[in-house]
Amino acid sequence: MIRSGETICAPATGAGGAISIIRISGSDSFTICDKIFVPLDKAIKLIDQKGFTIIFGNILSGDEIIDEVLVSVFKAPRSYTGENAVEISCHASPYIVRRIMELLIKNGTRAANPGEFTQRAFLNGQIDLSQAEAVADIIASATRSAHSIAMNQMRGGFSKEISRLRADLLNFASLIELELDFGEEDVEFADRPELKILILKVKAIADKLVNSFSLGNAIKNGIPVVIVGKPNSGKSTLLNALLMEEKAIVSEIPGTTRDIIEDTIVIDGVEFRFIDTAGLRETTDVIEKLGIKKTHEKINQASVVLLVDEISDSAESINKRVKVIREMLRGSDKRLFILINKTDQDSSGKENTLAISIMPEESEALLFISAKMKKGLDELRMRLSEIVLKDKLRLDDVIITNIRHYEVMVRVSESLDRVILGLDSNIPDDFIAIDIRQAIHYLGEITGEITSDEILGNIFKNFCIGK
Amino acid sequence: MIRSGETICAPATGAGGAISIIRISGSDSFTICDKIFVPLDKAIKLIDQKGFTIIFGNILSGDEIIDEVLVSVFKAPRSYTGENAVEISCHASPYIVRRIMELLIKNGTRAANPGEFTQRAFLNGQIDLSQAEAVADIIASATRSAHSIAMNQMRGGFSKEISRLRADLLNFASLIELELDFGEEDVEFADRPELKILILKVKAIADKLVNSFSLGNAIKNGIPVVIVGKPNSGKSTLLNALLMEEKAIVSEIPGTTRDIIEDTIVIDGVEFRFIDTAGLRETTDVIEKLGIKKTHEKINQASVVLLVDEISDSAESINKRVKVIREMLRGSDKRLFILINKTDQDSSGKENTLAISIMPEESEALLFISAKMKKGLDELRMRLSEIVLKDKLRLDDVIITNIRHYEVMVRVSESLDRVILGLDSNIPDDFIAIDIRQAIHYLGEITGEITSDEILGNIFKNFCIGK
Repeated sequence: MIRSGETICAPATGAGGAISIIRISGSDSFTICDKIFVPLDKAIKLIDQKGFTIIFGNILSGDEIIDEVLVSVFKAPRSYTGENAVEISCHASPYIVRRIMELLIKNGTRAANPGEFTQRAFLNGQIDLSQAEAVADIIASATRSAHSIAMNQMRGGFSKEISRLRADLLNFASLIELELDFGEEDVEFADRPELKILILKVKAIADKLVNSFSLGNAIKNGIPVVIVGKPNSGKSTLLNALLMEEKAIVSEIPGTTRDIIEDTIVIDGVEFRFIDTAGLRETTDVIEKLGIKKTHEKINQASVVLLVDEISDSAESINKRVKVIREMLRGSDKRLFILINKTDQDSSGKENTLAISIMPEESEALLFISAKMKKGLDELRMRLSEIVLKDKLRLDDVIITNIRHYEVMVRVSESLDRVILGLDSNIPDDFIAIDIRQAIHYLGEITGEITSDEILGNIFKNFCIGK
Repeated sequence: MIRSGETICAPATGAGGAISIIRISGSDSFTICDKIFVPLDKAIKLIDQKGFTIIFGNILSGDEIIDEVLVSVFKAPRSYTGENAVEISCHASPYIVRRIMELLIKNGTRAANPGEFTQRAFLNGQIDLSQAEAVADIIASATRSAHSIAMNQMRGGFSKEISRLRADLLNFASLIELELDFGEEDVEFADRPELKILILKVKAIADKLVNSFSLGNAIKNGIPVVIVGKPNSGKSTLLNALLMEEKAIVSEIPGTTRDIIEDTIVIDGVEFRFIDTAGLRETTDVIEKLGIKKTHEKINQASVVLLVDEISDSAESINKRVKVIREMLRGSDKRLFILINKTDQDSSGKENTLAISIMPEESEALLFISAKMKKGLDELRMRLSEIVLKDKLRLDDVIITNIRHYEVMVRVSESLDRVILGLDSNIPDDFIAIDIRQAIHYLGEITGEITSDEILGNIFKNFCIGK
């Protein structure tokens, strides 16, 4: 995996725009670039420059001028990768980028693999593995919450938490192992009840991280919301009203496009993603035809369910539908909101009657809206954003968003369960030590202290080229 | 148009990729960036830095870290715009780019208009107008030839040619005007026959530039080629063979995509664009049904015509078709190639018979090919590339590719025509002086010595944002 000595290059910017950046990293970066780059002051050589300086000049192929460029010089170890590195800033012409890449490759660099710059930063000890993974998350983050979690992770918040857990376990393991060294002598360096308290503490933190994944993942990918209800209750009108207001909110700075993701709204920096909305937009309600089974399937994919009813409905029929949905939600932590729609069509004060007649345990979930008149939508948005706050997780808490981290933490938690079981049932210390060592091993996989080519390959293949 | 004092900002890189660049230019660039950027070494202020240096640090919004960035510092006049300028290199997240743009705008910059950085470079005398226009051409250039012409223009080749013409005319004009100053005295500082030779020389250069436009424009946008011929002669097979070989030629460097433009091949760095090919791909030959009129229309759009015939055809029928096409081409400089296809289906040596029987004046245009077996295609490509060489224009010659320059040069040429007419018919010197001044004025419009907000607006509105 480590290909030290090789100098790599890749375009680091997207297609289009005014300028493009080509990155070069490796010990020969300067000597290779000196072969194709002629500074305005011809006496200058990149290899003689200080780091963090910029030189203006031409990229030449023989006598042919390929482009006028700015070249940024970074000297090991003060660069992203920790190696000698160069960034060429050229005109954003695909032709020019290709020609410069060809020249670099002809003169001794190799085209970088996806994520190879970040991988080198990891291999050279500039960042740990979870920080490297956060780089990809930062680039992909589209909302304040996703960005905030990824930024926290890149800046080492997650690594610090893991290191703390690992240090506690290492301490524990060495005490146990010290006892084993004394073999038959039956010494006890580690007070068992005290150690059990420590393990329980560590496990509680591990479990908190495991539990943070469902929210973390939802924040990263958008919290899935499903809209259900009988035909003509106004599901499609509600969806359109929410999406239209979203579009109006999106800031308009020339040149910065917010990728409007279809059927997505952002509330307080958290993305809510409406799933399976195709049916809602059709004039005939296909969903309803498919009935209960289909509704169940939809709800299974969602974290939040919006049940849309009409104010003209009877309390009985509403209660009946709520019961069916509650049955489907049983045992999950999915959230339900009961939206009584079309309040604009009622002037008889039925709102009050219904508010009383709907099952009292649902009063928290109940909202009166008029999707058509855009009434009650602010309240709905507020309640949706509270879901995140309600989880008692603050965004600057350490939150797991990565499936790899989640799987590792689950294994850590399982190992700790075995340790606790071992302590309780007085199994031999060497077995307990093995389980602790296993948990330590898993934690090391997160930060990359313990790793394999396979893990690295899996992580970095999903990066973009040039990062 | 000049908004001095205002500091502008814009993203300068395309969407996607690993890193994004945000450009800031204007006198307050450093003080504004110092408000949102905290270097690793907190004591550092951008305003105190030398130009052409890079600082690492964080972009902050209050306490919130938006991103870890590299900031490049450029001090007036040593920057692209000639003003104080900063480039922020951040992670390529649309969310981060938007947040940084918002911060910059909140702290006193304005979102830049398309091309505004280059416009400022022009207004601040860093480059002339034709060089500014070349910047857009460089970014758009997709082939060696288009890139080479644009690069020559950006480096001032075209401006120098125009300046030479203008200097010659200025000299001429001042001599005439000096005579006018002496009024009735009938002095003659400028020897008329000598001056006429000078004007003819200047006009010859102007006309050469005017004539270079059709090639220049073709090189910039691709030389239009049309394929005609009777049904089942193999037109579609020929097109596919050429395009498939093109795809195989295209270099494959990871991360640099050559935008494969549909129905385009590049020969010796010159792009040939097959037009109106939809019909060729259909199994029933719609084109042929539409007949002569449609063929004529197709040929009108093209610079090169490929007439495809079959080796099984009689010389008479081929000659007849060639005559029809030649008639359509009369008076134009369009090029015709007569391709006798399906040579693989003939073993009787009919090639030789046909070569003799086809009109001798067409022998230059005649080629025997087998599109199916990919025979003769190299020869065809060579002949196509010769079209450019044959025009006696070398790519490092000054070539007009810009419709604005073309129109201006046509007007210059017309003014000079009037001067020559004036000299020949002895009309009063003050009228001659007016025409010369007009030509001088037009030439000044190319380099931007004479300009208007309208011209500038038209030029820069077509630029991308951030350039």
